[in-house]
Amino acid sequence: MSHVPESHPRYQSLRLRDAIVAGVDAGVTSPHGLIAHGRGEAYDYLLGEQTATWAMTAIDAAAASLLLAQHPVLSVNGNAAALVGEELVALSRTAQAPLEVNIFHTSSDRERRIAQFLCEHGASEVLLPDGTTELPGLDSNRRYVHPAGILDADVIFVPLEDGDRCEALRRLGRQVITVDLNPLSRTARTASITIVDNVARALPLLVARVQQLIDDTNIDRQALVDAYKHEPLLSQAEARIRSGAD
Amino acid sequence: MSHVPESHPRYQSLRLRDAIVAGVDAGVTSPHGLIAHGRGEAYDYLLGEQTATWAMTAIDAAAASLLLAQHPVLSVNGNAAALVGEELVALSRTAQAPLEVNIFHTSSDRERRIAQFLCEHGASEVLLPDGTTELPGLDSNRRYVHPAGILDADVIFVPLEDGDRCEALRRLGRQVITVDLNPLSRTARTASITIVDNVARALPLLVARVQQLIDDTNIDRQALVDAYKHEPLLSQAEARIRSGAD
Repeated sequence: MSHVPESHPRYQSLRLRDAIVAGVDAGVTSPHGLIAHGRGEAYDYLLGEQTATWAMTAIDAAAASLLLAQHPVLSVNGNAAALVGEELVALSRTAQAPLEVNIFHTSSDRERRIAQFLCEHGASEVLLPDGTTELPGLDSNRRYVHPAGILDADVIFVPLEDGDRCEALRRLGRQVITVDLNPLSRTARTASITIVDNVARALPLLVARVQQLIDDTNIDRQALVDAYKHEPLLSQAEARIRSGAD
Repeated sequence: MSHVPESHPRYQSLRLRDAIVAGVDAGVTSPHGLIAHGRGEAYDYLLGEQTATWAMTAIDAAAASLLLAQHPVLSVNGNAAALVGEELVALSRTAQAPLEVNIFHTSSDRERRIAQFLCEHGASEVLLPDGTTELPGLDSNRRYVHPAGILDADVIFVPLEDGDRCEALRRLGRQVITVDLNPLSRTARTASITIVDNVARALPLLVARVQQLIDDTNIDRQALVDAYKHEPLLSQAEARIRSGAD
């Protein structure tokens, strides 16, 4: 399967399948992530494996939202890293949005591997949950965050998200942008902006659209980022910062 | 996830997900099988996770076909074993159809593990490819068969099949019964009888229907099986029996 020629009608699908299996082998993706990837394959098949015009509209909205944010953060899980690690690093750089690792199945070892994987793909810094800072309203491992990342972000880009976290972030008043091939999923239905598309097709388009908007508008991302630093969204008390002994 | 209560709305789906991940841990299912399972989850979700009336009709046809066959064989791969190993053993006993292991990704170690797994679930005998007998018209590992099994079967039950093998078996004039949640797949479109349903729901229904037909008709399965033994479907030359040195 690793030697499928580009001319093969299933080339792109098989290439992504290899990437996600390689992600498991590298300790970046969880075995359950393979099942999630399969679900995506099925929905993509039904979509004709093309980016629809309404997905392009959502990508436009996502690009604008990321650029207008004061503190956007890109949340990365094992599947996203394995499938579009390089593109996420490019989006982070273009939109001046830090990368933060946030995974569903608890494993600080895998969190470190994802961060390392992103660094190997060009990231200069990757935020990790510090193990003491929690986002309110979530029971799973995903509640643990970095105090300067998702906890304090106004716009969070979370491709391939689970429904619980998307709902929790929305309850906290955050703007959530997601990429999800299942338009019926809780994530797709509760996110602020849902890009119903294959993440491998959507990410390069999103990076290009962000760059185009910057070129067209001369938006001052740095001014927005600087302004934000003095207005934290969530107080330390609200964020339930736990003592190290907890 | 292993402690989801039966009352959970996603209980059945999560239970099967655990079964397939356990199959990988046990060396019965391949990692690629997890992706295939995810595709099935997505289609099942769209079907409302219920056995449709047309699936029941296909199950009725499959039960009749298995009982009228002279030499039916049940082909088992890693996903089928992990999800419905016990039910396949029950179907084998009820329909007097031998079980044969046949997997896509080459691994004689995994073939033996699947056979052992089926024996642990009550099978008294499981056929394995002998490594020298090939079914014509197939390039993948699935061409290797047991000389007294799929090679010589008139009706082959292959749940969760790949398109290539289904087409090859049909070209050889065999009747193929499959269970496939994707009604658009090559397998679903080329099989003689396609049960579009979750294999975990369809198998118990199929076993019950076969038993009911036996009870209703007093069909003499043993006479059919005995009659068949003298009429092999494929000559040894056609079957390309390879020398051991090959």
